[in-house]
Amino acid sequence: MANIGYIGLGVMGGRIAARLMDKGHTVTGYNRTKAKAQALLDAGMRWAATPREVAASCDITFAMVTDSPALEAIAYGADGVLEAMAPGKVFIDMSTVSPITSQAVAAQVSARGGVMLDSPVSGSVLTLEQGKLTMMVGGDRDTYDRVLPLLLDIGPKATWVGGNGTAVSMKIALNLSIGVQLLAFSEGILLAEKSGIDRKTAVDVFTSSALASPMLGYRGPFVLRLPDEAWFNVKMMQKDTTLALEMGRTLGVPLPTAAVANEFLTAARGLGLEERDCAALFHVLAHLAGVSA
Amino acid sequence: MANIGYIGLGVMGGRIAARLMDKGHTVTGYNRTKAKAQALLDAGMRWAATPREVAASCDITFAMVTDSPALEAIAYGADGVLEAMAPGKVFIDMSTVSPITSQAVAAQVSARGGVMLDSPVSGSVLTLEQGKLTMMVGGDRDTYDRVLPLLLDIGPKATWVGGNGTAVSMKIALNLSIGVQLLAFSEGILLAEKSGIDRKTAVDVFTSSALASPMLGYRGPFVLRLPDEAWFNVKMMQKDTTLALEMGRTLGVPLPTAAVANEFLTAARGLGLEERDCAALFHVLAHLAGVSA
Amino acid sequence: MANIGYIGLGVMGGRIAARLMDKGHTVTGYNRTKAKAQALLDAGMRWAATPREVAASCDITFAMVTDSPALEAIAYGADGVLEAMAPGKVFIDMSTVSPITSQAVAAQVSARGGVMLDSPVSGSVLTLEQGKLTMMVGGDRDTYDRVLPLLLDIGPKATWVGGNGTAVSMKIALNLSIGVQLLAFSEGILLAEKSGIDRKTAVDVFTSSALASPMLGYRGPFVLRLPDEAWFNVKMMQKDTTLALEMGRTLGVPLPTAAVANEFLTAARGLGLEERDCAALFHVLAHLAGVSA
Amino acid sequence: MANIGYIGLGVMGGRIAARLMDKGHTVTGYNRTKAKAQALLDAGMRWAATPREVAASCDITFAMVTDSPALEAIAYGADGVLEAMAPGKVFIDMSTVSPITSQAVAAQVSARGGVMLDSPVSGSVLTLEQGKLTMMVGGDRDTYDRVLPLLLDIGPKATWVGGNGTAVSMKIALNLSIGVQLLAFSEGILLAEKSGIDRKTAVDVFTSSALASPMLGYRGPFVLRLPDEAWFNVKMMQKDTTLALEMGRTLGVPLPTAAVANEFLTAARGLGLEERDCAALFHVLAHLAGVSA
Repeated sequence: MANIGYIGLGVMGGRIAARLMDKGHTVTGYNRTKAKAQALLDAGMRWAATPREVAASCDITFAMVTDSPALEAIAYGADGVLEAMAPGKVFIDMSTVSPITSQAVAAQVSARGGVMLDSPVSGSVLTLEQGKLTMMVGGDRDTYDRVLPLLLDIGPKATWVGGNGTAVSMKIALNLSIGVQLLAFSEGILLAEKSGIDRKTAVDVFTSSALASPMLGYRGPFVLRLPDEAWFNVKMMQKDTTLALEMGRTLGVPLPTAAVANEFLTAARGLGLEERDCAALFHVLAHLAGVSA
Repeated sequence: MANIGYIGLGVMGGRIAARLMDKGHTVTGYNRTKAKAQALLDAGMRWAATPREVAASCDITFAMVTDSPALEAIAYGADGVLEAMAPGKVFIDMSTVSPITSQAVAAQVSARGGVMLDSPVSGSVLTLEQGKLTMMVGGDRDTYDRVLPLLLDIGPKATWVGGNGTAVSMKIALNLSIGVQLLAFSEGILLAEKSGIDRKTAVDVFTSSALASPMLGYRGPFVLRLPDEAWFNVKMMQKDTTLALEMGRTLGVPLPTAAVANEFLTAARGLGLEERDCAALFHVLAHLAGVSA
Repeated sequence: MANIGYIGLGVMGGRIAARLMDKGHTVTGYNRTKAKAQALLDAGMRWAATPREVAASCDITFAMVTDSPALEAIAYGADGVLEAMAPGKVFIDMSTVSPITSQAVAAQVSARGGVMLDSPVSGSVLTLEQGKLTMMVGGDRDTYDRVLPLLLDIGPKATWVGGNGTAVSMKIALNLSIGVQLLAFSEGILLAEKSGIDRKTAVDVFTSSALASPMLGYRGPFVLRLPDEAWFNVKMMQKDTTLALEMGRTLGVPLPTAAVANEFLTAARGLGLEERDCAALFHVLAHLAGVSA
Repeated sequence: MANIGYIGLGVMGGRIAARLMDKGHTVTGYNRTKAKAQALLDAGMRWAATPREVAASCDITFAMVTDSPALEAIAYGADGVLEAMAPGKVFIDMSTVSPITSQAVAAQVSARGGVMLDSPVSGSVLTLEQGKLTMMVGGDRDTYDRVLPLLLDIGPKATWVGGNGTAVSMKIALNLSIGVQLLAFSEGILLAEKSGIDRKTAVDVFTSSALASPMLGYRGPFVLRLPDEAWFNVKMMQKDTTLALEMGRTLGVPLPTAAVANEFLTAARGLGLEERDCAALFHVLAHLAGVSA
C-alpha cells in the first residue's frame, strides 16, 4: 500500500480518493474548500494546507480540477505542486484541460526532476461507482508501467496513449461525441414523436438499439424529464467542445458535427439552460420543433 | 409451425428466411433474381413465380426489399401482393421505406380485408447471426400480438410502436444517427491522430468508451481499413438520411446534425465512394484534414 | 410585334405578360384560376381555354408556374402544351422546377419538332418593376439568339448558359444562397444586438457594407418587422433549397451551408412561419437566442 | 489641418496614413518594422520611435494593428500609447480585435483622462483606393462628433454604433458573413458546373445577380484562379470568425452558418491553404466534389 496525495476533492475527485482509501492506501488530500472534504477526513484522510504540501508528503500525487486555469492555480506559485517536484516524484493529473496547458505543466515537472502523467477518465460518477471507470494515460511509458497497479485500484482498465498531453487530447476527442450523439438522438426522438410514436416508447426503442452508446443509455430518461441536478452541464460540455474546436483549428482537422452541436449548446445558454445537464440539447431542439419538452 | 411467405431474399431477407426455416417453418419465397435464392431452394424453400403467388400460398407473408419503389413494385399490379390480400391474410413488410408509401400500401391491404404491419429491423447481418436482431412493429395491435411468436423466431425482441407507418418512421429516426455518430467518431479519431496518438490506439480507446454504441463498435476497425464489402453502403445510407430529412421538413423537425452528415455522404459520392461502407465518412474527413485514410 | 402566349398569370407571370403587352405584343393567356387574370383581360389580353390552345394560337409560348408537378400539368395530357408543339413552335418555361423535369419536357417538345428553352428569372417583383429583371436561358443556342429581342422586352439582360435544363440548374444554384445569406445576416445582427448595438443601426450598417447583396438590401427591413405579405415564403424557399440538395446528392456536390439553412427553414415551419417571408429565418434564430424578434 | 499620429503602417494602415497626408494633415507615424514605412517617410511623414512618442506628439492618434495581442503590445508598457494619454488626447483604434480587449484598453485610456474610440473599417484596400471605405465607430458620442471631419477625410461615411467596443463587435458581426457567403457561392458554382455550365459563365451570372454582394463581386474571379497574393487570408479570416464564435458563446447567440464556414476554413488549413485568400473555400469544396479547382 502506498502513501498518495489527492488534490481536488469534488464530485469525481472525492470519490476516487475514497476509492483509493478503500483499497488500503493512505491518502493526503487538499481541496480549495475544505468543508467539502469533511466526509473524507472523517473516513481517515489526512489534510494538507496547500497543493505543495500534498506533493511534499508523498511520491505520487493525483489531481482532478475543473479546467486549465484551475490546473495552473494548483501547479504554479509558492504553494504549487511544482515547488515539491523532485526526482522520484510523480504527478498524475486526471483533469480535462487544454493539451497545451498540460504539456506546459509537464515540462516544468520534468525540469524539476519529477514526472507528470495526464490521465483523464472516461465515464461518470455512475461508471466509477460501478467500478468501470477507465483511464487514458499520457507521458513517460516506464512511469506508466510503474503506477499502473495504482490506477487499476481506481478502475478496471487504463490505456497508455502516448507522450505528455496525448491523454487529454484523447479525452477531448472522445467528448466531442457527447453533444453530437445527444443532438442526433434528439432529432430522432422528435421525428418519432411527430410521427405519432409515444416519446417514452421512442426512447426505449432507441436505447435498446445498436445506436445506443452507454452515454445515450444513461441520458435517455433525461429527454423525458431533464433532471434538476446536472451530470455534466451545458457550460462544462461547451468548455470541452470549445477545446476540441480550438485543437481542430490548430491541427487542421475540420469538426463539422462538433461545430454544429456547439452552436446548439450556445442556444441552450441563450435559452437559460447553461447550468442544466447537456441533455438540454433535446429541449432546445424541441423548442424549435414547436413541441413542449 | 406455420406456412409463411418471404419476398425479397437479399443479404438480409435471405438470412431471415433461412432462420425461419431453421425454426421449422415452411417458407415459400420469391426474389426478383431467382439465382440468388438457390441456396435457400437447396435447403428446402418452396418457390413462387410472383409476389402474388407467395401471398396466395400462405397466411403470413414477409417482405424485405430495397426502397419505396421496390415495395410498390411487389405490392401493386397484376402480380402484386395486394391481389392476394383477403380477410385472414397478414403482410409484414420489413423494408425501410417512406412512411407515406408504407401507409398507402397498408390502406390498400386493409381495403381488401387483410392486415399489414410494418416491421423494419434494427441491426445488421452480424446482429441477426448472433440472434440479437430486434424489430419495431407498426399497425394493428391485435395482429401484432398474434404474430409475435413468429417474430420472436427471428430475433429476441419486438416492440409495437404504434399505427401503420410508425415502425418505419422509428427506423428512419434511428438510422439518422448512424452517419452522425460515424462522423463525430471520425472527427475524434483524426483529432487524436493529429495530436500524436496512434490511430489504432485511438480507435481502441473510443470503442471501449461510454461513447461507443454497438454500431460504432462494429465499425471501429473500418476506419483502419475500409472493407471491400459494404455492410451498409453510402448510397443506401443516404437514402435513409434523405427520408429522414424529408420527414423532418414535412413534420417541422429540424435535423441539423443529420443534414450535415448527409452532405458528407454526398462528398463521399463526389469522391467516388458511393458503393463503399458508410464508414467511408472517415475517409472523406481524413481527406479534408490532409491525412491519408 | 409578335403574337405570343403566356401560361401561368400569377404574381410574377401576370406582371411579365403585362409588360409584354405594354411593349406592343399581342398576348394570349391562360391561368388555372381565370378570375386572377381579369385585369390582364381588361387590358386586352386574349383568353385561351387550355394550355394547348395557348400554344396553338402563337409561335412562342411562355410559362411561369409554381413547381415541377405544375409544369407537368400544363405540358402533358390532352389539354397540354405538348399537343400543340410542332416545327416552328417555341416553348419558353420561366418556372423554377427540377432540371430533370425540365429536360424531360424539353425532350418531348423536341420529339414533336418544337424547341423548348428554360428561362427562369433572377429577381423579384420589385426588380421586374424597376425594369431590372435578368434571365438565364438554357436550350438551343440559335433559338435563343432568335428570341433574344423578345426576352429583352422583359428585362435588360439575358444570358445563355448551356443546354436544356442548365438555366433552371443555374437558378437553383443561385437561390440556395438566399437562405444562407439571410441566416448569416441574422447571426450578425443578433450578435451586434446582444453586444449593445441598436438593431436598426446594425441593419443599416450591414446593408451599406460590402456584404450587402441586393437581396439582403431588400430584406434588411424585414428583420425589423416581418411583413404580412411574403415576397418569397418559407415553403417556396424550402422547395428550391430542397431541389438544390437533391441535385447536390445526385451530382456529388456537398452543400454544407445550404443544408444547415434548410434545417432552419424547417424550424420556421415547426414554429408556424411557413407562409411568411423567408426573412423569418431571423425570427427562428432570435427565438434560440432568447431575443424577441 | 491637424497633427495626427498613426501606429501600424501595414497594407491598410499605411494607405490610410498616406490618404490623411494627401488631405493636408501632418502625420507622425510608428511601425514595428520601420523599413516598411519608407515610402511614407519619403512622402513627408514624421517618425516616432515608440507608440508612446506618437501619442505624445499629437492630440489624435490612430492605430491599425493585426490582432488583440498586437493592440495590447502598442497600448501597454513603458513605450505604450497609454503612457501618453491625458485629458484632451484621443486614441482611435481601427484594428479588428476582441471587443473585450478593446474595452479594456478604452477603460485604461479613460483612467488617464483620454478618450478611446474603436473604429474598424468596412472594406478592403480596393474600397479605400476608390474612396469608398466606411467606418463604424464606438465610444463617446461627443468625441465622435468632434473627430468626424477627420474620419470623413478617410472615407465617405462613418456610423456611430454605440459605446466602447460596439464598433469592433459590429465589424466581427459583419465579417462572419464573408466565409459563409463565399461557401454558399462556391456550393452554387460547383452545382452549376456539375450541371454542365461553364464555370466562368456561372460566376458571371452569379456576380450579376441579386445575390452578389460587393464582396462576392470582388472575389468572383478568385474561384477561377486563386490569386498568389491574398486579400484576406484564411488564417486572418478564421481569426475573425473565431472571435465571432467566442462572442456567440458568451452572449448566447447561436451562429450555425458561421460555425460551418469556420470548419471549412479549418479544412483549408488542413489542405495547406492557410496563407491563401479566403476564396480558397471554393477549392476545399471543389476538392470534396472531386472537381479540380
